[in-house]
Amino acid sequence: MVQRITFDEQALSQRLMNYRRELHRYPEAAWCEFFTTSRIAGHLENLGFELFFSDQIIASDTIMGRDETTIAKEQQRALNWGTDENTISKMQGITGVGALLDTGREGPVYVFRFDIDAVEVMESQNDSHRPCFLGFSSLSPGVAHACGHDAHAAMGLGLAEVLAENIELLNGKIKLLFQPAEEGCRAGKAIAESGWLDDADYFVAAHIGMNVPSGTLVCDPQHFLCSSKFDLHFKGKPAHAGIEPNVGRNALAAACTAVTQMLAIPRHREGMTRVNIGQLTSGEGRNVIPARAVLKGETRGENRELNSFMYQQVEQIAQASAMMHGVHVEIQAQGEAIGLRNDPEMVDILESVGYDSGFTHVVRQKDFGASEDAGYLVDRVQSKGGKAVYCLVGSDLTAGHHNGDFDIDESRMLSGVKLFTSVIEKIQAQQ
Amino acid sequence: MVQRITFDEQALSQRLMNYRRELHRYPEAAWCEFFTTSRIAGHLENLGFELFFSDQIIASDTIMGRDETTIAKEQQRALNWGTDENTISKMQGITGVGALLDTGREGPVYVFRFDIDAVEVMESQNDSHRPCFLGFSSLSPGVAHACGHDAHAAMGLGLAEVLAENIELLNGKIKLLFQPAEEGCRAGKAIAESGWLDDADYFVAAHIGMNVPSGTLVCDPQHFLCSSKFDLHFKGKPAHAGIEPNVGRNALAAACTAVTQMLAIPRHREGMTRVNIGQLTSGEGRNVIPARAVLKGETRGENRELNSFMYQQVEQIAQASAMMHGVHVEIQAQGEAIGLRNDPEMVDILESVGYDSGFTHVVRQKDFGASEDAGYLVDRVQSKGGKAVYCLVGSDLTAGHHNGDFDIDESRMLSGVKLFTSVIEKIQAQQ
Amino acid sequence: MVQRITFDEQALSQRLMNYRRELHRYPEAAWCEFFTTSRIAGHLENLGFELFFSDQIIASDTIMGRDETTIAKEQQRALNWGTDENTISKMQGITGVGALLDTGREGPVYVFRFDIDAVEVMESQNDSHRPCFLGFSSLSPGVAHACGHDAHAAMGLGLAEVLAENIELLNGKIKLLFQPAEEGCRAGKAIAESGWLDDADYFVAAHIGMNVPSGTLVCDPQHFLCSSKFDLHFKGKPAHAGIEPNVGRNALAAACTAVTQMLAIPRHREGMTRVNIGQLTSGEGRNVIPARAVLKGETRGENRELNSFMYQQVEQIAQASAMMHGVHVEIQAQGEAIGLRNDPEMVDILESVGYDSGFTHVVRQKDFGASEDAGYLVDRVQSKGGKAVYCLVGSDLTAGHHNGDFDIDESRMLSGVKLFTSVIEKIQAQQ
Amino acid sequence: MVQRITFDEQALSQRLMNYRRELHRYPEAAWCEFFTTSRIAGHLENLGFELFFSDQIIASDTIMGRDETTIAKEQQRALNWGTDENTISKMQGITGVGALLDTGREGPVYVFRFDIDAVEVMESQNDSHRPCFLGFSSLSPGVAHACGHDAHAAMGLGLAEVLAENIELLNGKIKLLFQPAEEGCRAGKAIAESGWLDDADYFVAAHIGMNVPSGTLVCDPQHFLCSSKFDLHFKGKPAHAGIEPNVGRNALAAACTAVTQMLAIPRHREGMTRVNIGQLTSGEGRNVIPARAVLKGETRGENRELNSFMYQQVEQIAQASAMMHGVHVEIQAQGEAIGLRNDPEMVDILESVGYDSGFTHVVRQKDFGASEDAGYLVDRVQSKGGKAVYCLVGSDLTAGHHNGDFDIDESRMLSGVKLFTSVIEKIQAQQ
Repeated sequence: MVQRITFDEQALSQRLMNYRRELHRYPEAAWCEFFTTSRIAGHLENLGFELFFSDQIIASDTIMGRDETTIAKEQQRALNWGTDENTISKMQGITGVGALLDTGREGPVYVFRFDIDAVEVMESQNDSHRPCFLGFSSLSPGVAHACGHDAHAAMGLGLAEVLAENIELLNGKIKLLFQPAEEGCRAGKAIAESGWLDDADYFVAAHIGMNVPSGTLVCDPQHFLCSSKFDLHFKGKPAHAGIEPNVGRNALAAACTAVTQMLAIPRHREGMTRVNIGQLTSGEGRNVIPARAVLKGETRGENRELNSFMYQQVEQIAQASAMMHGVHVEIQAQGEAIGLRNDPEMVDILESVGYDSGFTHVVRQKDFGASEDAGYLVDRVQSKGGKAVYCLVGSDLTAGHHNGDFDIDESRMLSGVKLFTSVIEKIQAQQ
Repeated sequence: MVQRITFDEQALSQRLMNYRRELHRYPEAAWCEFFTTSRIAGHLENLGFELFFSDQIIASDTIMGRDETTIAKEQQRALNWGTDENTISKMQGITGVGALLDTGREGPVYVFRFDIDAVEVMESQNDSHRPCFLGFSSLSPGVAHACGHDAHAAMGLGLAEVLAENIELLNGKIKLLFQPAEEGCRAGKAIAESGWLDDADYFVAAHIGMNVPSGTLVCDPQHFLCSSKFDLHFKGKPAHAGIEPNVGRNALAAACTAVTQMLAIPRHREGMTRVNIGQLTSGEGRNVIPARAVLKGETRGENRELNSFMYQQVEQIAQASAMMHGVHVEIQAQGEAIGLRNDPEMVDILESVGYDSGFTHVVRQKDFGASEDAGYLVDRVQSKGGKAVYCLVGSDLTAGHHNGDFDIDESRMLSGVKLFTSVIEKIQAQQ
Repeated sequence: MVQRITFDEQALSQRLMNYRRELHRYPEAAWCEFFTTSRIAGHLENLGFELFFSDQIIASDTIMGRDETTIAKEQQRALNWGTDENTISKMQGITGVGALLDTGREGPVYVFRFDIDAVEVMESQNDSHRPCFLGFSSLSPGVAHACGHDAHAAMGLGLAEVLAENIELLNGKIKLLFQPAEEGCRAGKAIAESGWLDDADYFVAAHIGMNVPSGTLVCDPQHFLCSSKFDLHFKGKPAHAGIEPNVGRNALAAACTAVTQMLAIPRHREGMTRVNIGQLTSGEGRNVIPARAVLKGETRGENRELNSFMYQQVEQIAQASAMMHGVHVEIQAQGEAIGLRNDPEMVDILESVGYDSGFTHVVRQKDFGASEDAGYLVDRVQSKGGKAVYCLVGSDLTAGHHNGDFDIDESRMLSGVKLFTSVIEKIQAQQ
Repeated sequence: MVQRITFDEQALSQRLMNYRRELHRYPEAAWCEFFTTSRIAGHLENLGFELFFSDQIIASDTIMGRDETTIAKEQQRALNWGTDENTISKMQGITGVGALLDTGREGPVYVFRFDIDAVEVMESQNDSHRPCFLGFSSLSPGVAHACGHDAHAAMGLGLAEVLAENIELLNGKIKLLFQPAEEGCRAGKAIAESGWLDDADYFVAAHIGMNVPSGTLVCDPQHFLCSSKFDLHFKGKPAHAGIEPNVGRNALAAACTAVTQMLAIPRHREGMTRVNIGQLTSGEGRNVIPARAVLKGETRGENRELNSFMYQQVEQIAQASAMMHGVHVEIQAQGEAIGLRNDPEMVDILESVGYDSGFTHVVRQKDFGASEDAGYLVDRVQSKGGKAVYCLVGSDLTAGHHNGDFDIDESRMLSGVKLFTSVIEKIQAQQ
């Protein structure tokens, strides 16, 4: 009979909270997670994990939505926050870290994936917002852990501790992937292409919250949306708005036309679609016809065809808006997510260990309705013969994901960690 | 018979060029002219002028379009550029400087006004752009002297030199006003209200270029546009664009609706009108329904009624766009220009001295077609019994005003200075 | 053992075709079915049915989307087509007819419903369009049986014949409802409120086509959309577009704003929604600012909440568009559809008799994805204790519903009639 | 000494009123003036004028904005109004009439032009509207003499009477042109090209009202706008709006985009421009994605370049709107007006005879600000060596031109007639 993995649950729960709150305080947007990566790498190194950076885990030529000039500034910002220069130099500008614990014993390769980036939203300054009154709110105005990836990273660190402590009970190899740039689905494809996951026998990832209440585990979420992320650059011609308004080529007018029209792309008979323009920046002086405009947007669809329909409409509208106002437009792809299909064997395992891991409700299926960069990871693992699962760890929320008032139920992180260790135990027991 | 004011014209022309090129290299946008003011003040002090700063020349409570948080950063930037801390402390955060040369003899009070701010446009990086290949292009990306105010300030310094040198030939008092924040018509009203111009018997201002070719003087430009500058702040509600698009309140959609509709405000039977939205910034993350949007815009009209018509439409459209998308909107007035009517006596004087000042064509009237912050100054001087004139000093241009390729014919600055001294001579001769 | 209802199938199939082609040639839009009603009534009377018109079957005070002035013209048009004046006078301006066959024997009350109106689309003039080359295409330009209601009415007549012929084998009462104004969901509510269906024990309705191929029967279509139909009337102020464009209040500009914005109502997390503006008429002279605009539109949603969300957005956008352009707007409700839920007992019956009725595939469930006026009828019958079912009779189509090239597979009407008689037989057998 | 042309002014004034009110009661839109032409022709024939119709006065192959199918219906309508069939047959479908009075004596050729068409606006039903309470309001709903052409035609008939009566005092030839289709500037070019004006030595035309008060004559109105009239036909693809919204190609969405964007064509530095979409008709059924849309619009500009700028923008926007929504668009030119420049000699004559003709104010210049089909006529006369003038006969108005409440001061027609006879007298006197 197999000996159970054990640990002091109360102490771990406290440490998970500490990890999460520190990361929450230092949020970093996609591809800028220098401080975050460095802190995580430090912990993992101390626990005896072997670390992998940059091209070892991410095929840099297939990276999407990463802007070199921003990165330089952000790296400097991270250094100002006291990030370890040595770790930064290992990253070679590319955030995220892979960690390997080799038990030295025969056995399967497990991969657990934790995404670590924050979102570009202004965190609530409201006193009733817990990170505010407890003093761990964002130090970076306009960036916040409003999606729960701070909790994911904390769970990853918690899992690393438990595994290191119980290494004598384990066999095979365990890989922990701390993924950058999940927001915007910008890193998944490049990680998949690096090949670092190609030896995985089992792949597990989870998201906290997602409209699932505290105590509930959703083993097999449905309806992952395919998605394309894009930037539009409109270039016109400036002119003095008073003296010669007819001479300008108004890039802002083109951009606004594009926004209004893109929001009106028709619904599709075959299923759910989405479009959003999340950001628009345009113009120079108040009395100058705006000569440039940059939009950041995304499409989604229940399947590849639906997402393609949306994206083709976006392209057509972009061209027509440019033509309308005599300006030039360029579309730059910035990220992409594909669907995600869990392996039933893995879903079965989750379902069987859910209650034991501390969940009070274990649900097999529920709608997901968003996009996940993990789609590329799951797809890669499955294509190499591995089994994969992506699940939802419930948490009551104070506000929706990506809202400035977003906060999680921190007590739920513990069940997440226990779920991961239970999966390993279950698989070891089946062998 | 009166002795003529004389000076080494060739030497002055060279110095005007040097002044202009230095200021061109260090462009500062409206209300941020810390370096510029400080350099000008230094020169004037050396020449024996008495200086006036802040509330002495600008009624700070009626200032428009000035953002305290930007100012702090910009002041720091100016210090980094080596601006004299002592002068900065005199400014008390408010740029611009007034200078007085008192001859000690009975006589009228003359005011000459020079505006000193740059515009927020990206200067051309093209090698064929003279400031580039001669090495005096903007050191501040996104800010440039693309309107010619660098030449105005240089002419003011040149005039100061000539006057100081010839003080024994002069009587009365001469005031030089180096005005900040002309762009956006943000300072004029506050300067007028400070009372610093109230003792002026004669007021003269000029603009270089404005579609007037090199060698031509336009004594009495027509059709100054009234103008209102405004910011619109839309506030909505963020939401995850994939999971719950219907929950957001889309501030960007409202802003784009407003832009499109404002550009479509009907033409007016009574005359020329204008509207421009020069800037739009909106949104946070790509996958978040944008919760805020800020627009910077302006209206113009041939007279107050036409400008009011435009502004009322803007207000109506702003409210309707907000209602359309269930968001909140706030309109903040940011600047205002009124019409401008020259005194015929002053126009006559310009016309009579034009050819002697080095102009080859002297034209009485020509359309102006833009707005000028000097309107408030002229109006104030006239209301206190003084006479005022605003004229155009021709200069061939490489590109239109506010265009990144804008450059002037530097040789024309000399005629400007001579025009100003000729006006003094003419008035002294008439007494 | 019960004797089977029998008839000469080949002869009936030919007559169904004849009925359908005549009705196809004389298409009449909603509430204008004077010729159609009269022809149907004539046949039914000859077969011995008792007829019911006007308030007997339709509560005229709850009628939606019926315009009295159009009706007068259309009634005249029908008379020009040779419609029997006597029948028209019985209608009292309200089209449609109810027919009762009383067997004189104890037994349940059956209701079969057939909708009879055409759609306002221009029928294809293409030679390859069968109604063209066979010479039964629409005699009324801009109106066509492009939804298949001509086939429904023909099946109703065919059923009437078979029942009349086999009356000795039947018991109870059989009612046939030839419903007007199904398009736009304008009559259902008023028919329900008339009470004519209140004694129904069994209610059966069917639609031909609907993306179901020839030979297939769908017994229990899913996802009927709730829908609201509305007209928007914008009223502005005319003005000469050259002389005083600023004086007008542009109703067309408001209407176009409304259309663009309504198409951009956000998708909803809870499910499928729709919005369409199907018609816009605006303006007078080319050089007059348009002072009025009329839009005809509709919203849909998978359930009442979703449809309400859409309709509230429509109301908000209508108000905001009017405010934007300083015009007045009025919203007039024109029709309404609710969801529809079949009784499982009835679905079972259909499933059990499908193959015997000549279908080669019998499918229990399939998405419907449109709105049906029958929702109100089914709801009324069920609320009075009756059982109801709405099913789909497959037919290959030459083009989608409401397309000018639409045509059906006429051979499928026979199975429809057989399905209805089989339902009666099955119920009689169960008693 | 020349004998003066005399007549009973009071009697003529009464007849002018009678003529005008009859024509007001039977308004006919452009190219549909069958009744109007016939009534005018009858009077002229009785007075001894030789008449010219169809190709004699209008080069039918250069006609714009005339729709053959409408014409047929309108001709029938005119016959229903009792129009003389014989006159109609002479017209050969083309309205308008030219009339010649040959004095038989040597002398110049005079042409006076009167436009006769009504506008497509709904006349006010308000009791306070004089045509209503005096019982001569429009008998044709949606068509009204809301521009004053009824008064023009009446003045033409009055002039014909006076000339016929005084023929013994006259020499040379006098031509009266009763022009159709002035609205939309549809006939002028074709009349010019017919050559009927080519022998004119003097050409005179006038418009009543136009913001000139009763009693005032404007001899030389300024700023006639060039104009282009156009129809846009958008063709998309219908689809059921509930079942397959993504399959349609929405012509209405394209049309609304075009309207919104065309209203936002930028103002032009060189002067006044205009754009209007006066009519939009789109769509079929409420639940069908609209597959066609027709817009009627116009551009204007102070000169040909400005109008061209506007028209090119319209073309660009039309194409871009079509591309945006995947539909097809066709632009059809429907009319065109060019500028108009009076001959100073003719302006002098008007100025010299104005007060004698009963005007109390004679003004040389005033802005016109609209387009006039007479531009082509004046241009043709001048190109053949004749002299031409177009003037404004003041009249207080109850509402602006093209407004349903428009009415004139009928007493002003008399001065118009006297002005025309005075011009002849003056020219005869100069010979």
